[in-house]
Amino acid sequence: MSQTATLEKPKAASLDALYALVRDDLVRVDNVILERVKNEIPLIHDIARHIIASGGKRIRPALTLISALACGYEGPRHVALAAAVEFIHTATLLHDDVVDESKLRRGLATANEIFGNKASVLVGDFLLGQAFQLMVADGSLKSLKILSDAAAVIAKGEVMQLMTEGEPETSIENYLQVISSKTAILFASACELGAVVAEKPEHESCLREFGIYIGMAFQLIDDALDYSADRETLGKNTGDDFQEGKITLPVILAYSAGDEDEQAFWNRTLSEREQLPKDFAIAQSLMRKYGAIAQTIDMAEHYCEKARQALAGFPQSPARSAMLDIVDFCAARAY
Amino acid sequence: MSQTATLEKPKAASLDALYALVRDDLVRVDNVILERVKNEIPLIHDIARHIIASGGKRIRPALTLISALACGYEGPRHVALAAAVEFIHTATLLHDDVVDESKLRRGLATANEIFGNKASVLVGDFLLGQAFQLMVADGSLKSLKILSDAAAVIAKGEVMQLMTEGEPETSIENYLQVISSKTAILFASACELGAVVAEKPEHESCLREFGIYIGMAFQLIDDALDYSADRETLGKNTGDDFQEGKITLPVILAYSAGDEDEQAFWNRTLSEREQLPKDFAIAQSLMRKYGAIAQTIDMAEHYCEKARQALAGFPQSPARSAMLDIVDFCAARAY
Repeated sequence: MSQTATLEKPKAASLDALYALVRDDLVRVDNVILERVKNEIPLIHDIARHIIASGGKRIRPALTLISALACGYEGPRHVALAAAVEFIHTATLLHDDVVDESKLRRGLATANEIFGNKASVLVGDFLLGQAFQLMVADGSLKSLKILSDAAAVIAKGEVMQLMTEGEPETSIENYLQVISSKTAILFASACELGAVVAEKPEHESCLREFGIYIGMAFQLIDDALDYSADRETLGKNTGDDFQEGKITLPVILAYSAGDEDEQAFWNRTLSEREQLPKDFAIAQSLMRKYGAIAQTIDMAEHYCEKARQALAGFPQSPARSAMLDIVDFCAARAY
Repeated sequence: MSQTATLEKPKAASLDALYALVRDDLVRVDNVILERVKNEIPLIHDIARHIIASGGKRIRPALTLISALACGYEGPRHVALAAAVEFIHTATLLHDDVVDESKLRRGLATANEIFGNKASVLVGDFLLGQAFQLMVADGSLKSLKILSDAAAVIAKGEVMQLMTEGEPETSIENYLQVISSKTAILFASACELGAVVAEKPEHESCLREFGIYIGMAFQLIDDALDYSADRETLGKNTGDDFQEGKITLPVILAYSAGDEDEQAFWNRTLSEREQLPKDFAIAQSLMRKYGAIAQTIDMAEHYCEKARQALAGFPQSPARSAMLDIVDFCAARAY
């Protein structure tokens, strides 16, 4: 990661304050989730546990919980809605795992290799159904509108991403629209729901903005890490995006700056999907050559700053501070 | 189809009266559907048109429309909800088309061969998102509950079906639960919505029952036709279920009545999925031997009769007559 060494490392950031504030509610969220899958047929139960109980950061439901807290909410509604948010996220993960036959023929490792395509899509549908049942039980048409709009936008973003696959000449604008739709919208909705349950309409738009920007930053850094992260420390498989021919900002930047031979490399590896063992290292070196990772992180920093600004006028509280910690943590993930 | 020749052919049945009553509203349903996909990115538009505009019978949205009419409803709400029902159905079709890598390796023809697995699942998600947006725009929590419950039950039914795949010793009870969940629930919800928009709570349960029973009959006959229908006349590919190792009532009946060699045949073809070109004809002959198709049609007739009974106390009207025609039509499909 020599290219990022020129950037100043942000101050040490942690989510400790966040989790201290929402720990109890997050346990309640987990209970709602597990309650809804525990008596299910084994395949549903197994997959749901595999994904949900695998100990992710629960950042999306935590955003709903902390946003509600930041709005002074003291009731119980945010728990079920946070669970709905996590169900939608998990369903998206499962559906994103579905792979095409053409790619399997190329011997690509699949994220759904334990359960198979069909189980991934059907259990994803089941979890999505649970999300909507939770929202209907909550009974607020406003929440329902926020999350059903989010579900539609996410699906559209995923289709858009599918259409850019293997197209390294995709525009930055197009890429930003994809990550805004497939990722940032759910962060935004998660935050906005906090204001909705608290019945603080005056906070809806700034929390939504905060969510959009933190979501953009989050995805940009994810996309940077895929070409730079150390597998053990970050729990993410470096090179997944490359193997799948996914077009992310680092690729777009390296491709557009590249010469004819380099563009031929990207076309062969990402469009034709003809990849040799050493190709990932070549991809990384091309990105270093053009500072593509550093520029991606710069853009993430830009969105982090916008997220901070979105909360500028928001009343001071420990919850607000914890939300600003999320921004710092997100920025620090890049280093 | 010699085995069914012993059954009396039902009187000529047609859906003419139904479509005469709901034709205008069905055009409105199509417009709502096409409006929601026409300006979409090409892949969504293409797939949605491919499925939605392919000229199916639109039986599910027609059930919502005719049920509303039978309840004396004269407003506009049933159109958007009927479109939501069709969107849910279409999303289910797309997701049902997703195939597993293991099956592709066996060279199985796939229904999603034009667009691929991933497009099927993501565009299905998009259509599901449209369904929920339509329901939220309608603004009735009662409708939302009916359809979100249906979506969750359908997903569960699809998972249950997946788990019975290649298991010819599946019980009849288990099979009935699968078809009730994956098929009949949406027919039931489609009908119940008619009473909801008409604000006739006294008709909700009988319309729901009617829908359940007609849905059960519909699926049973579909499953019978898969082993008996003439491809050209019915527009359905005979043998699909067999190729996919799907366990339907005709299989369960032929398997349980079969001797050791015959059970070995079913295990090889459906569990191991080792199928030779002549195997489908053997499967059909084993079904003839045990009257498995005739028994399946008998059970469908039984549900048709229950559907008729569900409407027994319902006020007379041309709409009610048209609903009874649907039952006759459903029964006549078997011949």
